[in-house]
This record gives sequence, structure tokens and C-alpha cells, in this order.
Amino acid sequence: MGKKKAMAPVENVDLKTVKYKPEPIQAPHLTGFGLRLFVWVTEAPLIGSLVLSILKKQNKMDEMLRNTVIPERPMFKPEYPPQEPEHGVVVVGEDDEPVRRVEAALKCLPPYDPAYLSNTNSSPYLYWKIRDYAHAYRAGLVTPSMVAEHVISGVEEFNNKKPPMPLLISFNADEIRKQAAASTERIKEGNPISILDGIFVAIKDDIDCSPYPSKGGTTWFHEVRPVKGDAACVSKLRSCGVILIGKAHMHELGLGTTGNNPNYGTARNPHSLERYTGGSSSGPAAIVASGLCSAALGTDGGGSIRIPSSLCGVVGFKTTYGRTDMEGSLCDCGTVEVIGPIASTVEDAMLVYAAILGSSVTERISMNPAPPCLPSLSSFESSNALKSLRLGKYTEWFNDVYSTDISDKCEDVLNLLSRNHGCETIEIVIPELDEMRAAHVVSIGSESLSSLIPYCQDGKGPKLTHDTRTNLALFGSFSASDYVSAQRIRRRIMHYHMEIFKKVDIIVTPTTGMTSPIIPEGSLKLGETNLEVSGYLMRFVIAGNLLGLPAISVPVGHDKQGLPIGIQLIGRPWAEASLLRLASAVEELCLESRKRPSTFYDILKVK
Amino acid sequence: MGKKKAMAPVENVDLKTVKYKPEPIQAPHLTGFGLRLFVWVTEAPLIGSLVLSILKKQNKMDEMLRNTVIPERPMFKPEYPPQEPEHGVVVVGEDDEPVRRVEAALKCLPPYDPAYLSNTNSSPYLYWKIRDYAHAYRAGLVTPSMVAEHVISGVEEFNNKKPPMPLLISFNADEIRKQAAASTERIKEGNPISILDGIFVAIKDDIDCSPYPSKGGTTWFHEVRPVKGDAACVSKLRSCGVILIGKAHMHELGLGTTGNNPNYGTARNPHSLERYTGGSSSGPAAIVASGLCSAALGTDGGGSIRIPSSLCGVVGFKTTYGRTDMEGSLCDCGTVEVIGPIASTVEDAMLVYAAILGSSVTERISMNPAPPCLPSLSSFESSNALKSLRLGKYTEWFNDVYSTDISDKCEDVLNLLSRNHGCETIEIVIPELDEMRAAHVVSIGSESLSSLIPYCQDGKGPKLTHDTRTNLALFGSFSASDYVSAQRIRRRIMHYHMEIFKKVDIIVTPTTGMTSPIIPEGSLKLGETNLEVSGYLMRFVIAGNLLGLPAISVPVGHDKQGLPIGIQLIGRPWAEASLLRLASAVEELCLESRKRPSTFYDILKVK
Repeated sequence: MGKKKAMAPVENVDLKTVKYKPEPIQAPHLTGFGLRLFVWVTEAPLIGSLVLSILKKQNKMDEMLRNTVIPERPMFKPEYPPQEPEHGVVVVGEDDEPVRRVEAALKCLPPYDPAYLSNTNSSPYLYWKIRDYAHAYRAGLVTPSMVAEHVISGVEEFNNKKPPMPLLISFNADEIRKQAAASTERIKEGNPISILDGIFVAIKDDIDCSPYPSKGGTTWFHEVRPVKGDAACVSKLRSCGVILIGKAHMHELGLGTTGNNPNYGTARNPHSLERYTGGSSSGPAAIVASGLCSAALGTDGGGSIRIPSSLCGVVGFKTTYGRTDMEGSLCDCGTVEVIGPIASTVEDAMLVYAAILGSSVTERISMNPAPPCLPSLSSFESSNALKSLRLGKYTEWFNDVYSTDISDKCEDVLNLLSRNHGCETIEIVIPELDEMRAAHVVSIGSESLSSLIPYCQDGKGPKLTHDTRTNLALFGSFSASDYVSAQRIRRRIMHYHMEIFKKVDIIVTPTTGMTSPIIPEGSLKLGETNLEVSGYLMRFVIAGNLLGLPAISVPVGHDKQGLPIGIQLIGRPWAEASLLRLASAVEELCLESRKRPSTFYDILKVK
Repeated sequence: MGKKKAMAPVENVDLKTVKYKPEPIQAPHLTGFGLRLFVWVTEAPLIGSLVLSILKKQNKMDEMLRNTVIPERPMFKPEYPPQEPEHGVVVVGEDDEPVRRVEAALKCLPPYDPAYLSNTNSSPYLYWKIRDYAHAYRAGLVTPSMVAEHVISGVEEFNNKKPPMPLLISFNADEIRKQAAASTERIKEGNPISILDGIFVAIKDDIDCSPYPSKGGTTWFHEVRPVKGDAACVSKLRSCGVILIGKAHMHELGLGTTGNNPNYGTARNPHSLERYTGGSSSGPAAIVASGLCSAALGTDGGGSIRIPSSLCGVVGFKTTYGRTDMEGSLCDCGTVEVIGPIASTVEDAMLVYAAILGSSVTERISMNPAPPCLPSLSSFESSNALKSLRLGKYTEWFNDVYSTDISDKCEDVLNLLSRNHGCETIEIVIPELDEMRAAHVVSIGSESLSSLIPYCQDGKGPKLTHDTRTNLALFGSFSASDYVSAQRIRRRIMHYHMEIFKKVDIIVTPTTGMTSPIIPEGSLKLGETNLEVSGYLMRFVIAGNLLGLPAISVPVGHDKQGLPIGIQLIGRPWAEASLLRLASAVEELCLESRKRPSTFYDILKVK
């Protein structure tokens, strides 16, 4: 009684009165036996719902979703007001052949300078870029088949470590050799399909890629859901001549942010093998960071592209919800997930993005997406476009990180952008961050559970990791009205962001609130549940998912321990081009402070 | 274990193998003490969820929503593929002044014939139509103020019956007199605002209408949600000069199909006072059927406009989801509800529809509605347009009614349409009707509960009727993943209907599976829960709500007991005009078989 609260209608909220509240996560940190016990308790008939309801009460879930009158209508998936077209950009056809779009992307890049290739040991050289490979292939310096052998031995090396630290969950050396031979042949004959011909790309294990199973990091999901062919995005990449090297490691079913996976062994951060890659796209980020692959496709429903990209020191690009076709991925039924590229540079992320973009028929009906655009990155046009960019920063949030190394480094970037490009930073306020987090976990949790519950009812539950099982027990405790109320919150949060985007063009935050955490002893075998770490890792990523906004993580340097730090840029709906342009500028400003990971495969040197 | 089923992807379902299954409702019929006990049990902490889970198991809810793999993506609210424009129709501006749209509607009608007015006792005269009132006002035969007195005394007569049988929950005689005097004055001066000036209209109690509270049929909802002004639709009507007579009776919170309401007394069917009006728009249908009002606004989330219109022998028009602005109604947050008119004739429903139509800004962003149209009803244009209409009939479903009086009468109409207008009837099959019902109850239930739960948590629950409380206990048992799975079913059902609409223009069914049921003894005071009756009443209405399709109920005659029978026409998305045209043709064919209700206020005669 008397517990009811009422939120003011969103238009009436006075932003001047909004106070930043640090995130109040209250949950045990569990590994090993403790986690096993906790799973047993949460899954027990009566006591389980009691324990969960106490946990949810501590985190004010019920207070937000059941005891509060939320005046807004539910917004079940992102709905955007009509958007101004972007300036200084090139429209690409989403129904064109992917090869045509990749050509258009290539034309947007500054002229290629092969000098890097002959200068591999000096700064600022870090990674072979896609254009480096393409140049080397065409100049006869190396062939895809030669590279394939290095990739295969690198992947096997990680697989054979004790304990195993796999980058890929499924791969087949012969399959890679076959694709590489075909690409080598095409290039030799002077008929490469595109700049992507012979480029090595890994696919996250929750996206279909023939002939591999899609296990989603589980031990059994491929048995109940046989793969029928390539996912839509994968098929587009394949049509550009890409060499698909296999299914990259991931946190089981994408339901975690560390990449811990007792089923297959936990992938390791190439910058420090005793640390997590971040997740859930653990393999995609790690394999790109290790230099074995130019790019990978990941999925991002709660930071799953951006978090591991940030922790592994690479670029992770989450497109606008609906911009990429989810057909053929395990998370094709949610309202928060997208497929997007992870690459070592913004340029490469853009080339892969150009290949895969294109909304599904379903989303075209329901979302009416703006036409996809790419930024012209020639220095003249870019500098003009950058000058007018207004960057939004919510300082208290920005600074709420585990170590000031992170916020300081990101702050430096803002200063560099102002000094070098004239980008103005404008202070913003984002209200209701707790509510945003609650709405997100209810959305992604309920949508995931809807896909999984028939299998759990069918007895597959105990075959999942303990971490997944605690998550599913939590998701199962959400009521249908919680789900609807979460969608009311989604409308409020969308309103706040659309208001912010009247004043700024891009919101800037650190990508994660902490750098790569150490893998605790005992968590390799039985997994780990650590909501404090999750909280830090997910602190800044939620708006990209709950509101479907495009966001990109760009490496900006390292903390005192030498671990990568990423900055996150969050753009307007459908405004991928402006985001890529700013990301490219940030990358250029920070290139000198990026370091190669300790575990790095230098394909050129190997040669 | 081993319980899992998997649905075939919707494109692969072979309609030839679909078998019609009668609805398997298993639930107790409860009134009085039994209902009270049942509420107590279902609300009890542990036993409650046990009882509900048994009930849901019997009705296969969990089997459909938890044990079945549904391959489709969720569709959270109606999403339509692009629609062909309608032929022989007039586009009206949804941003125009309502008066302009009413003028456009008037031009669509056949020429007015005042002969009816002087010929009130002979068939086919039944009700004064809006144009009859307008003519009589302008010819000085009667004034709005004179009519107001009859309306007031009629309303009071029902209020004062023992037990009370109120048509309105809130009304204020002086308020009516004031509006009537102003209208009388305008007409006297030769300045009526529109054809609707001086027309009496009742507003369902869940739609805001100043200065009345919006109780939604409860005893307390107006205390927690004060009315700030007219709802969007009501304000449009007021701007046309309509006289708003008060807040019409309804089933508490719209959560029932009979109109039983122990809080205010149960409204009675004007055709038989010991019978239900049907619900939840009980008052709107009854007051129009009684002849006291030309029209009323109702809301329809699960047949709530069409069911009482059918049972009371009047026309009930449910527009496409999103066609009318829900702002200012209690059910403005759902994915299945619309506001629509109830009137004694199709012509009047169309005039009121023209006044109120217009999507909200929110829906324009997310639904991209086709422009609203009205049918030209001149006989030449109509007969041409009717000739080409293909009507869909799912015979086994059509015939699954309580008494063959209903199916026979509706079948007669199809024959008449074929004979008189050349409309072809085509046999169709609609698969997964059980799933459609499950998806609907989960959707409307969860969305309603999301609006109510803060008040229930705050101790208002026990102030609701027992009927509502059993419903809310059921709704509270739905999980968030049930809700998401229900939306996957919505996408399947949408697919089937869009396929059907490639072959037919309008789907025809009886509106309800039974005519007006008797009010059982003991249910007046404590309410009633009778899912068998609900099943019959809701049998044919669900697609209109789950898929948001426009649908209209037209009276076609009476059963052997003299109770009205309605036919339902279900149209393509946004194709209100074609629906109104066919409805008008049906009405004309059936006019002679309609009878005046036993309780009928003949305003002209009274004069």
C-alpha cells in the first residue's frame, strides 16, 4: 500500500532537476561451486522465485515496472521521427549487388598509400588493412592461399593451448584452403570480385555460415536448429569474394559480457592472455585483434560488438536497428539486436558494412529506414563536415568509470577533436538511466527466453552453462506486464534522446566503464556471474540497443596496465555515415597511441 | 520432456490440411458466492498460480506459448504490407477540420428523402437518422432543446428502475440542456456548425469527455486519473456541434463481453430487458438501440464495439488500428484497441466516423497509414463497386454458432448480395484460430495489466469487481516470454490474412456466435464469469483486434426469440471505405427484417 509512484509525462520532465545516480547493482559475484549452488536455488520451484524477487527488489526492478505509473504508450521497437538527411555523404543502394556498394565505399576512402606495407615495424603501422591485403595480393607479394596457412596455424595454436583458448568454435582447414585457392586463382587471373576478394573474415557463432553449424556457443543448439545456408549478411560477404574462416567464439547464447564459455574454453584477450576478451562477440574481437583476420561479423543486443572491440583494442560498429538483415542469425527475433562488423580500422569496418547493409523486407515495412549512406573521407570534405559537428557529453556519467585512465583518455580525444577539427562539445543530461537499463534487460531477456523456452521445456535447460541458467531464471521471472511497462520506458528514453539530438549530432562516452578484467580462477570450468563487472562493461552501451541507435567503438589508447580503451560514438537514427566520419577522425588522432597486442600474428613478417 | 512442438514456417503451411477445430474453452461458469471464492483462490499466493496454471493447461495456453517453437519474428503491433488504393472512394484530409470531413461524407450519401419523417409508424422506418434530425431541426419540426428533455427523461427512467439499469454512468441534465440550448440557438439563427449540430451522442466511460470523470466502469479510476479535457475524438465531435450527453455504461475496465457491472447496475438490452447488452461498450449500444441517441463512441479491444452492437441490433464500426486517435482514452496504450462509432445506421456511423478519424502523430510515424477514404454511396457508383467484390467465407467457422438461426440469417445475406449485387462468395480457410485467441488474450491482458498494476500494487485491487479480479489474476500469470511468443503468433495470423486478402476483398462472418444471453440470477450484485458465453460472443471478432483490421457489424434480422443478429464484415487494412459501402448494401437488403426494440423512445411520437 502507498507504494505507488507516478512519473511525470516525459515532456514535463525538467532536465535541470535531473541528478546523476551511480548504478545500484546489488548481486553476488559467483564462480565455481557458489554459482552452481545459486543456479540450483534460483531454479528451485518456490525458493527460486523468492530469491529472484529479493534480487529484483534490491535492484528496484519491481518499483520501476510495477509500482510506477508510466504515462507513455509502449514503444515495442525503435520508432523514429523523420530524420534530416546527412550532409557530405554518398547514398548507396540497399538493393544493389554488395560488390557495387563496396566499390562505392572504396571511392569514399582517401587515396591508398602502399608505404605502410614496406614499413611494418614502425609506428603508426598496426594491422594490415583490407586495402593492404588487396594491394599485396595484386602486387604478387602474397596470395590468399599463403595467408590461409598462417590463419589456420594461428587458429590451431590457440585451440591447442592448455587450457584451450579458442578463437573459433567451428572451423575447417580444408574449407578455408578451398576458398583461398579459388580467391588466389581469381586474383592471379586478374579477376578479383571486389576489394574484399581473399580477405579473411570470421563469423560469430550465432550467425549462419555454411557449412558450419550455428551453436551459439552452446553444446546443443545446432541439433535443434540445423543451418540451411548462409545468413543474409554472410551471403553478401561471400558474394564479394571474402574467405569465411569459420564460426567465432562467443559467450553462450550471447547472454554475457565477458566471453566466458565453459563449453569450449574461454577466448583470451590478445593484449593479455589472462584477461577476458569481453563479450558476447569474444571470438570476433579477439581474432581481429590478434591480426589473424581483417574483420568479423558480430551481433550486438547489449553491447556485444562494442564491448569486446573496446576491450581488445579494435573497431566495433553497431548499425541502426534494422539497417542490417538479421535473417539467418539466432537473434533474429528481438527488438535490440543487430549484426555489425568488427575490424582493426574504421576504414575496414566501413568496407564490410558497405557489403552487408540492407534492411529486411519486414523492417522496410515497419521502420521505413532512411537510405543508407557512406561518408566521403577525402580530407577536404571531411574537415568541412567535422567542423560543424556538435558532440554531446554527459560529464558525470562519462566520468563514472572504474579507473580515471578511461575517462581521461576519452576526454583527451574530445579536446583533440576540438583543437584539430573544431568540434564543439556540449554538455547534455540523460535522465532515467536506471530505467533504461531495466527496460533493456527485460526486453532482451524476454525476447531471448521466448526463443529458448520450448527447448528448455523440452529438457535442454540443464545442458546450458550456469551463467546462462541464472540469466534464464531471472528472465523467466519477468511478467508480461513488466515487458509492456519496459516498452513504455523505451518511449520515454527515446524522447530524451531525440531531444538531445536536436542540440548535438553525436553523443560521446567511453565504450566501457572498465578495461579488460582478469579471468578469475575457477571460472573457466563452471563459469562466472559477476554483475558488478557486467555493470561496468554495459554502462554506456544500452541506448544503442534499447533505442536502436547506431554506435561505434574506436580504440583511443591504453590504460596504465597497457589494456586498450575504447571511445563510443552514438549517432542519430540511420546516420551511420556521420558516425563513420567522426570515428575515422578519432582513429587518426589516436593512431600513435595504439599498441599491438602481445599475441599478434604478423602475416607479413611470418612471410 | 519430449513436449516440444515446432510450427512449420508460415509460408510452408498447407491450407488444404487445415482442419477446423471447435473452440476448446474449459473454465467454470461462476456467479455470486462461487465467483467470490474463485477470486479468493486465484489471488492467493501459491494456490492461485497453481489453479491458474491448471486452467491454462486445459486451454493449452502453455502448450502454444511455451512448448512450441514458433519460427516467425514477433509482430508487436499490426504491420501491413503496402496496400492497393481503394476504388470509387473519396480521400478525406485527416488534418482537415472535422466539419470539412463531415461535409465530404455528406456528399457521399444518396440524396436525402424526408418522406421517412412523416411516415414513422410504417416499415422500413426504424430510427431517426442524423439527417432526419438535421432536417427536422432546420424545418422547425423540433429543436435540440426539445429532444434534450426526452433524452434526459429517458436516461433518468432507466437510472431509476429497480434494480437500476443505467445507460449512462455519468450525466448531468443541465450540461445537456446548456449544449442543446446553444445548438438550438445556432440552428434558429441559420448557422448550424455541421450536419451533426444538435445530434445527441454518448461517450463510453473509458473515453474522456469534459466535464465528466472517466471511471472506466470502476468506482475509483477517476480518482487516480483526473480528466484534463476532451479526448481527441470527442473534441472533434464537439467541434461539429454534437451534443455530448454523458458517459455511457460499460463492463468494468472493458474486461468483459456481457456488460455486467455490479458497480453501477447492469445496462439492459432494449430488445429484452432481462438480457445482456453485450460488452464492453454496453451503454453505447443500448442507448443507440433505445432510440435516445443517434450515435455513441465505443472502444473495441476484443469486440467491444461489435459485440454489443450485434446483440442490440445496431451498427458498430471498428476502424483500422491507428485510424482514430486514442489520446484521452483509458486504453490508449495497447496494440489492439480503437475508438469507433456505434449508430443505428451505416450512414450515421459513417458521418460520425468522418468527424473522428485521423491518426495520432505516434501512429503516423510507426504505421504510415493509407489516407482515409469514404465510399461514394450514390447507387450508380455503388452498384459498380459492389459487383466486383469478392467475399470470403470460412464455412465451418461461420456455422460454429450456438443456434443455426445466426448462421442461416448470415448465409441469407450472402445469397442476397450475390443475387442483388453480383458479389461472389469464395471459400477460405483460416488456420490457427486457437493460437489467434491465445495471442489476443495475452496481448490485451498484459497491456491492460501494465496500465493497472501500479494501482493494484497500491491496494486498489479489492475495489474491482470479482470478474475483473479473476481476469487480472489470469493476466498476471502471463510471463514476458509468453507475451513475446504471442507476438510471433500475431505475425503468423497476419500472414494468413494477407494471403486471404489476395483472393477476397472482405471476410464475412456472423458478428457473434450467440444472440443476447439472459442475465443469470445472482450475477447482478457480484458479477459473473462465464467463459463459454465469452467464447461464443468473441468467436469471430479477434482478427479485427489482433491484426487491427477494420470490421463492422450490421444488423441483419432476429432469431426465433426476436433477438437481433449481426453480420460482421472484415476489411483490408485501412480500407474503411469498401467496408462501409458493403455494410450499406447489407443494411439496405436487411432493413425490412429489422425490428424496433421493445424499449424504444420514439422522439417524434413523444413530441
